[in-house]
Amino acid sequence: MKRGFGSDNHSGFSPEVLQALTAANSEHALAYGDDEITARLEQLIRDTFGPQARVYLVFNGTGANVLGIDAMCNSHEAVVCAETAHINVDECGAPQRVVGCRLLTVDTPDGKLTPALVKTRLHGFGFEHHSQPKAISISQPTELGTLYTLEEIRALANLAHEHGMFLHVDGARLANAAVALGCTFKEMTTDCGVDVLSFGGTKNGLLMGESCVLLNPVLDVDMKYRRKQMTQLGSKMRFMAAQMECYIESGMWRRNAEHSNRMAQLLRSEVEKVEGVKIMYPVQVNSVFAQLPCEVWHRLQQRYFFYDWDEEQNVVRWMCSFDTTEQDIHNFVNALKEEICRK
Amino acid sequence: MKRGFGSDNHSGFSPEVLQALTAANSEHALAYGDDEITARLEQLIRDTFGPQARVYLVFNGTGANVLGIDAMCNSHEAVVCAETAHINVDECGAPQRVVGCRLLTVDTPDGKLTPALVKTRLHGFGFEHHSQPKAISISQPTELGTLYTLEEIRALANLAHEHGMFLHVDGARLANAAVALGCTFKEMTTDCGVDVLSFGGTKNGLLMGESCVLLNPVLDVDMKYRRKQMTQLGSKMRFMAAQMECYIESGMWRRNAEHSNRMAQLLRSEVEKVEGVKIMYPVQVNSVFAQLPCEVWHRLQQRYFFYDWDEEQNVVRWMCSFDTTEQDIHNFVNALKEEICRK
Amino acid sequence: MKRGFGSDNHSGFSPEVLQALTAANSEHALAYGDDEITARLEQLIRDTFGPQARVYLVFNGTGANVLGIDAMCNSHEAVVCAETAHINVDECGAPQRVVGCRLLTVDTPDGKLTPALVKTRLHGFGFEHHSQPKAISISQPTELGTLYTLEEIRALANLAHEHGMFLHVDGARLANAAVALGCTFKEMTTDCGVDVLSFGGTKNGLLMGESCVLLNPVLDVDMKYRRKQMTQLGSKMRFMAAQMECYIESGMWRRNAEHSNRMAQLLRSEVEKVEGVKIMYPVQVNSVFAQLPCEVWHRLQQRYFFYDWDEEQNVVRWMCSFDTTEQDIHNFVNALKEEICRK
Amino acid sequence: MKRGFGSDNHSGFSPEVLQALTAANSEHALAYGDDEITARLEQLIRDTFGPQARVYLVFNGTGANVLGIDAMCNSHEAVVCAETAHINVDECGAPQRVVGCRLLTVDTPDGKLTPALVKTRLHGFGFEHHSQPKAISISQPTELGTLYTLEEIRALANLAHEHGMFLHVDGARLANAAVALGCTFKEMTTDCGVDVLSFGGTKNGLLMGESCVLLNPVLDVDMKYRRKQMTQLGSKMRFMAAQMECYIESGMWRRNAEHSNRMAQLLRSEVEKVEGVKIMYPVQVNSVFAQLPCEVWHRLQQRYFFYDWDEEQNVVRWMCSFDTTEQDIHNFVNALKEEICRK
Repeated sequence: MKRGFGSDNHSGFSPEVLQALTAANSEHALAYGDDEITARLEQLIRDTFGPQARVYLVFNGTGANVLGIDAMCNSHEAVVCAETAHINVDECGAPQRVVGCRLLTVDTPDGKLTPALVKTRLHGFGFEHHSQPKAISISQPTELGTLYTLEEIRALANLAHEHGMFLHVDGARLANAAVALGCTFKEMTTDCGVDVLSFGGTKNGLLMGESCVLLNPVLDVDMKYRRKQMTQLGSKMRFMAAQMECYIESGMWRRNAEHSNRMAQLLRSEVEKVEGVKIMYPVQVNSVFAQLPCEVWHRLQQRYFFYDWDEEQNVVRWMCSFDTTEQDIHNFVNALKEEICRK
Repeated sequence: MKRGFGSDNHSGFSPEVLQALTAANSEHALAYGDDEITARLEQLIRDTFGPQARVYLVFNGTGANVLGIDAMCNSHEAVVCAETAHINVDECGAPQRVVGCRLLTVDTPDGKLTPALVKTRLHGFGFEHHSQPKAISISQPTELGTLYTLEEIRALANLAHEHGMFLHVDGARLANAAVALGCTFKEMTTDCGVDVLSFGGTKNGLLMGESCVLLNPVLDVDMKYRRKQMTQLGSKMRFMAAQMECYIESGMWRRNAEHSNRMAQLLRSEVEKVEGVKIMYPVQVNSVFAQLPCEVWHRLQQRYFFYDWDEEQNVVRWMCSFDTTEQDIHNFVNALKEEICRK
Repeated sequence: MKRGFGSDNHSGFSPEVLQALTAANSEHALAYGDDEITARLEQLIRDTFGPQARVYLVFNGTGANVLGIDAMCNSHEAVVCAETAHINVDECGAPQRVVGCRLLTVDTPDGKLTPALVKTRLHGFGFEHHSQPKAISISQPTELGTLYTLEEIRALANLAHEHGMFLHVDGARLANAAVALGCTFKEMTTDCGVDVLSFGGTKNGLLMGESCVLLNPVLDVDMKYRRKQMTQLGSKMRFMAAQMECYIESGMWRRNAEHSNRMAQLLRSEVEKVEGVKIMYPVQVNSVFAQLPCEVWHRLQQRYFFYDWDEEQNVVRWMCSFDTTEQDIHNFVNALKEEICRK
Repeated sequence: MKRGFGSDNHSGFSPEVLQALTAANSEHALAYGDDEITARLEQLIRDTFGPQARVYLVFNGTGANVLGIDAMCNSHEAVVCAETAHINVDECGAPQRVVGCRLLTVDTPDGKLTPALVKTRLHGFGFEHHSQPKAISISQPTELGTLYTLEEIRALANLAHEHGMFLHVDGARLANAAVALGCTFKEMTTDCGVDVLSFGGTKNGLLMGESCVLLNPVLDVDMKYRRKQMTQLGSKMRFMAAQMECYIESGMWRRNAEHSNRMAQLLRSEVEKVEGVKIMYPVQVNSVFAQLPCEVWHRLQQRYFFYDWDEEQNVVRWMCSFDTTEQDIHNFVNALKEEICRK
């Protein structure tokens, strides 16, 4: 399939990954994370996020999110999140099945929670008929490609902590956020008071690399059993660790994210010139949400695969990847223009 | 870590795997299994196991087993298995947490269920206080390295079907069994009446390759949702499919399994010559279980990593791998002899 | 505690209940529902709701609702309900923990779903990342004391069935609805296409009497195991059946509901005369929701126990019971007036 | 149905219960346990079991057991119990579904665990592949009508505590045990180091009365939410509390248990005189297990309802109740003799 704008997990993996896998493929290693590469990664994560950070490698973003929720919440507790959050919309009820907890969702204009929005869900504490709010979960960047500033994250962390709650960040695309904000991972998480992070690299050039990183050591209870029991313990973990190590250490996370963010800006600027197409949200990372006439959208989908985002509003999502080229964008925008004209 | 006999997942991956991953890493592909390589694998699985076979790639053996159980059983139903079964002993209660069902365990002399043993668990049908037996699960080879003959599998399948139950095979090492029995995968599963198969390659030279294969089409209900909700849906699935395709198509499954089985025979024959060490079970695949004096065992573990199997009986497990060499075995047996003499 | 307006489960039980319990307390009876009284009740439910109806007695409304949801949905499926629904707000996440499914909530002005509102949640069919909508759940009367007309129920049932979904009615106060609408239970449920009913009597004068009634026989699968496994199977069930039998057969359901509805009308009409108090919703059954000045509300709560409904809007809930007297209402309204004047 | 020997929950309720219910049925009371009678019961339980005791009323024994297990164990932890334990055999997998944990079962000759038997299950601590043993659960009396001495209970409690585990007692028939051992409830539980008790009265003359009593205050965490979320919170709880209060305070527990135990001794002594019938276990409380010829057993079951206990061994169970009369026993033994003679 030719390169397109369907998702940043439609691309393959960066060349660095192959080198890392090859290097790790030497002799024997203990399974299930008791190997040297995983130990090195654990140190690297501490170096990156602060000495209290603990990393648990998992297979996918759903695993990272569910493990993180399980660390924070009992089944009778609840996570406040945006209606659009991946944990709410796109995990087929995994938190409900595996943790048994509730998600308390909030409508947002742009995918971002605010303290005021969260507060509408913070009641019923101590009332046994109500699931007890115990965590706030945000996505950075959000599913709509918008970003929280560091101050906004800190404010949510403070609100959580004031109520004995925790703050979780779904960072499946955290690298894109860090590059866009010009900050380190630590500044955006640990330093803002984030308690749990789903830290992923699969959407940014890894073959498979996701993790649940605990930044608040209070939560590091029975994690290895939780991960195992929810089916997320990998046997040849050195190959997952090697990817994540390469991701951080080689600067691959930054190179790839800078590129895909830049491609999204190019896409946005080119699309803005096309009459009849409206950009829906500020383009801050590697996605562009656009509203376009229904027929154009359907005809364009016959040439390129991409997802509808809101069928009622005729909004679609275009994602750029670490391997998107300027030529890809020009070809795509030309196709868009052709379909607009044919209208 | 030097090559040893700790587990067949302590080895890395075969060179073929790297080629398969590299070949698959071209352009874009739809995620979550809607790609061409996964489609090819689905056809290959049908060619291998019969036209009714349906494959669901997952991340690990626990995922394959739990997805298979979920396909067969509701939470108020039960799986009859050997006390030593991986699903009972080594998955930290994943079936209980994720499916919510019971396992009805049976003590066995050699890890193998028989119709007579299973029948001791088949009562209480229709009695609402009892979990309803709905599946039999066997491991082929067993966790003790023993094998079911085709007739034995067929007898268990018949027993299951007579009671409206299903037969599941945990085939994390199915290749080792097929090679030892000199039969095809299909002859050992579909043709014997097996309903669900956990089919794995990770322990036999893949980086990561496990799957739940439904052989009974009646069970193919809502599988994609089950897999997703239990956190076992991979995004860049083409790379999982490419490995499994390579595993089957290149004959790698056979080469690797033949080798590790042969190494186990060599290990067995060498160990048998050592006085004071007793081989516990027939060596049929790639594992050797040995009873040895307590002090020897502990001193040897300081030189080589391997697992205790039964602390009370002083039984340990030694596993051979696709990359085990004859020299490895001679070195190991020499070390064993030295520790025996030092006694 | 003196009689008040806190809840219709603050009252005790009707005298008829004691007679029914006494009459049932004779000799021995099989446990767990295999007794004669339960058999008679099963027939009575068929007579009441139609020949296909199946009743499963449970302990409380949560049990009835969760068993009903379990009959309709797998864990990867979802129930569309009002944000204010008891299953969403007041069961501490029991559906999530016990069934593992999602609730897809909809904001409503008056606690009532409409086809248009439900349709906003009916998308993503066939998309494995999304929980699959499988049921609609409404409360009749709603938690806000409002009623669906028969036509409105039928429209929701039709919508459900068009999408291969089911309609569940939480009828913890179904008697109050039937009396208010002047229809039979059957006309309001079976005849409108309702598939599952939580049918309760505890809030209307029983000591303990709740049930899950299946009106669509397709759903009657493994129900006895589901009830047992979710801890809702009672041993001396004859005493639960005897109450429910008495409830229906003696006309107690009607007498009690007519009375409490009438008392709510009296309360409404008296409160309407009080300046500074606003009735929030149409009073259709036995509850009155009122908005009143914050200080008045707090002072009145020191004299009478009742629940805040919406702290931000200063709305409280007053419930009438089968044992509420006209004098109770006059005393209460006088107390309200005194606190208003003291303002 | 005439009085028989099927189960002690085939009998109705004692006359005291009706008085207690009637007395409690006065005016209004807060629901869900915030009423005065429940408060009095809480004090009575503290007086009975010691000042640290905390009682949570539930609907049935399954509820009490599952709530107790939930207090002790996470889903990745395990409960060691006898293969014959009610939680293992007779709750249709409720612990697995609701808590998600494993039960580690042990074969016993007489339904009783011993430290030596338990120790066979205490391994794998710290090994993430294994469910972590966290509780021991015993039934007092056992399902086979046998009793633990106080010393035996203390030994199991000590063993549990040495391993950071808890001891749970399923006391659905605790009164029968206390009467037989001539000790108080406190001597048999708190004073022996028991951490959690399922304390029931339904089988001993209550209409419905079961509870989870925490004796170790460390476990009293989030209990009210757990009870609610697992569907075990009753609304008109005063009527459950009133029964339990009456049960303890009026001495009804002792009168009824003394009677049913005495009837079982009479039944045993009469049956022992009958040739061809063998008493299987020491008769210590209110049950008699007998082995009798297959045809006799089947013919007798046509005259009296009772349960098969072990079909393969031709063992049946006869239970005496608080309302069993000497005449009942003579009639039954006569019937038995007739069927024996007809052989």
